[in-house]
Amino acid sequence: MSAPAPSTFTVTYGITASSPKEAEAMAAALAVEQSVEMPPETVPDHLKGQIGAVESLESDGSRRWQVAIRYPRALAGDDPIQLVNVLFGNSSLQPGIRLLGCDPSVLSDLLPGPSFGIDGIRSLLNVPKRALSCTALKPVGCTPAELAERAYACSTAGIDVIKDDHNLANQPSAPFEHRLLSVLRAVRKGEQRSGKRTLYFPNITGRPEEIRRRFELAQKHGADGVLICPDLAGWGALIDLAASANPLPVMAHPALSGSRVLGHESGMSPSFLYGTLWRAFGADAVVYPNAGGRFQLSKEQCLAINEACRTDSLPLAAALPVPGGGIDRTTVASWVEIYGPDTLFLIGGSLYNHPLGLETAVREFQSILNQPGS
Amino acid sequence: MSAPAPSTFTVTYGITASSPKEAEAMAAALAVEQSVEMPPETVPDHLKGQIGAVESLESDGSRRWQVAIRYPRALAGDDPIQLVNVLFGNSSLQPGIRLLGCDPSVLSDLLPGPSFGIDGIRSLLNVPKRALSCTALKPVGCTPAELAERAYACSTAGIDVIKDDHNLANQPSAPFEHRLLSVLRAVRKGEQRSGKRTLYFPNITGRPEEIRRRFELAQKHGADGVLICPDLAGWGALIDLAASANPLPVMAHPALSGSRVLGHESGMSPSFLYGTLWRAFGADAVVYPNAGGRFQLSKEQCLAINEACRTDSLPLAAALPVPGGGIDRTTVASWVEIYGPDTLFLIGGSLYNHPLGLETAVREFQSILNQPGS
Repeated sequence: MSAPAPSTFTVTYGITASSPKEAEAMAAALAVEQSVEMPPETVPDHLKGQIGAVESLESDGSRRWQVAIRYPRALAGDDPIQLVNVLFGNSSLQPGIRLLGCDPSVLSDLLPGPSFGIDGIRSLLNVPKRALSCTALKPVGCTPAELAERAYACSTAGIDVIKDDHNLANQPSAPFEHRLLSVLRAVRKGEQRSGKRTLYFPNITGRPEEIRRRFELAQKHGADGVLICPDLAGWGALIDLAASANPLPVMAHPALSGSRVLGHESGMSPSFLYGTLWRAFGADAVVYPNAGGRFQLSKEQCLAINEACRTDSLPLAAALPVPGGGIDRTTVASWVEIYGPDTLFLIGGSLYNHPLGLETAVREFQSILNQPGS
Repeated sequence: MSAPAPSTFTVTYGITASSPKEAEAMAAALAVEQSVEMPPETVPDHLKGQIGAVESLESDGSRRWQVAIRYPRALAGDDPIQLVNVLFGNSSLQPGIRLLGCDPSVLSDLLPGPSFGIDGIRSLLNVPKRALSCTALKPVGCTPAELAERAYACSTAGIDVIKDDHNLANQPSAPFEHRLLSVLRAVRKGEQRSGKRTLYFPNITGRPEEIRRRFELAQKHGADGVLICPDLAGWGALIDLAASANPLPVMAHPALSGSRVLGHESGMSPSFLYGTLWRAFGADAVVYPNAGGRFQLSKEQCLAINEACRTDSLPLAAALPVPGGGIDRTTVASWVEIYGPDTLFLIGGSLYNHPLGLETAVREFQSILNQPGS
């Protein structure tokens, strides 16, 4: 018999305020906003216990405070979407409030976590230790044959994972099923030359019915996983994929999610969003915008995402962090050193612009990852 | 025969940069990021036409620029989710870039818009002209009987619309179907005393399957509409509701969406998100955080949301703006004057804390809206 679920859970937020008194008032208002959302004096006595409670409020010595709020577990019921609503529904609209984290147990209680995780993906690849490689099939506008040709070059050279560019949907230039079949055939052919596995993750982001249709096609035709953008598709779709009776590895892509993490005084901590939450929702691998590239997270924020993906303090399978968008074939070696082997390194444009072509670029990429110590 | 769809569409962004040269570089990079997402020199010649093109770049005289980018229509295919990806997928992750608007025609081409809209909701209510009233059933933790008692007080006093608090999901305290039946019965009974219609919109936000289940229950039991939080449920769910063979009015609630609009230099303009986009996605009524309350939009931003909900420059039915979260029963008269009659005024806590009770509070609210000129 498992232990009964705790009757409350605690959520931490950052608060920006101009005085201790203002911080206290904001914390108290936040606890109400995220629970009963009405003046406490109007809450019937027998329901006062539904109101969130400020557990602690600590200043960092400047204008920032960290507050822990305890909510009754009953507010979320058995519903992970409602849990997110309790974490940050209305307070996302209030400047000066930033969601930082929550009790792992309420997440593992309500959410499936990765079906495969780092170990499962390593096992599919038969690569137990070293850092892993990934590229994106692009650009949009290519025919299935053109995309298959690129996929063949990459798998021949032994890449670990090929994902669709997140811009490949179901456009007439490369309709989903046609693309899936062409690319899978090319990847399986390339594997025979490389002598190793390459996984292909087609993009299934779309409307709910379209997600189901493409996921079923991916299952039917033997895709090795799928790519989905949770902020475009809805986070619930992630859970459904992970909870499928016949799951495939799921890679989550951060399209449209940037506004959630860019603020410093509002939004969410990127490690909590991409690491903890998307992992709990079922992402086996999480693409995030790496430091030093054309996006803006710091190296410290990226390290925190990696840690949140992998930590066993969340009792769910670990997710594979996938830094991308800021990784160059000439700099990847140093990132391998910094991030360690349990990382899937995503390089796009910088492989495509190798003067000797894509296949050579991928061979060089693989040789970096195959070096002892990687 | 309708005119063929234009082969391109234009999107406008705000850019924050420290020099004209930087602004130009950001605009050019943005056009690439949101289309082929790879170095232009690596795009095959026959696909160069897929790359977005900077149409104009105008300075406001300080650090802000407005850029218009023209994208090939083919990038979105026939997929409204992919359209959103083209509008702001990866660039949401880049500081200094804010999504401001886009060609209305691509929206009306790919999206359903409201099934009922302002006219449809007025017709259900049989209220052709005056401003409309709304409250939220709360707090979470109440039983269906307790919620029904509140709904009865409100409908007896003649309120126009009752929506579930967005925190009412399917918790054991008030499971969805039980709540729906109890509240609907109470509302129909209250209507007999008031002699006028009151619409009840239960909250169907949840995982995809749960949204479908609750929507079907809402249809089956005769709910007058539904409430959904697009950022929790996924925007695709909105389209599906609007495109249902047997649609109900849909009210969209902004829970979890705040981080999208709070930045000034990143994120989206609130009028484009809540007004244009959610209306195009199918919201008949859009709740947004009103100025002057516990949230932070300015009066000008709220007026712009109202305008985007109602304007006929978007060739779809108009949506009803629903300012909430900052409206008090003692100040609503002045908001009616400012926002005009095609507005659904949402008052929550301030009705519940009326010293003479909810029914009296609603009667006073209605009498303000019934005044000539409202």
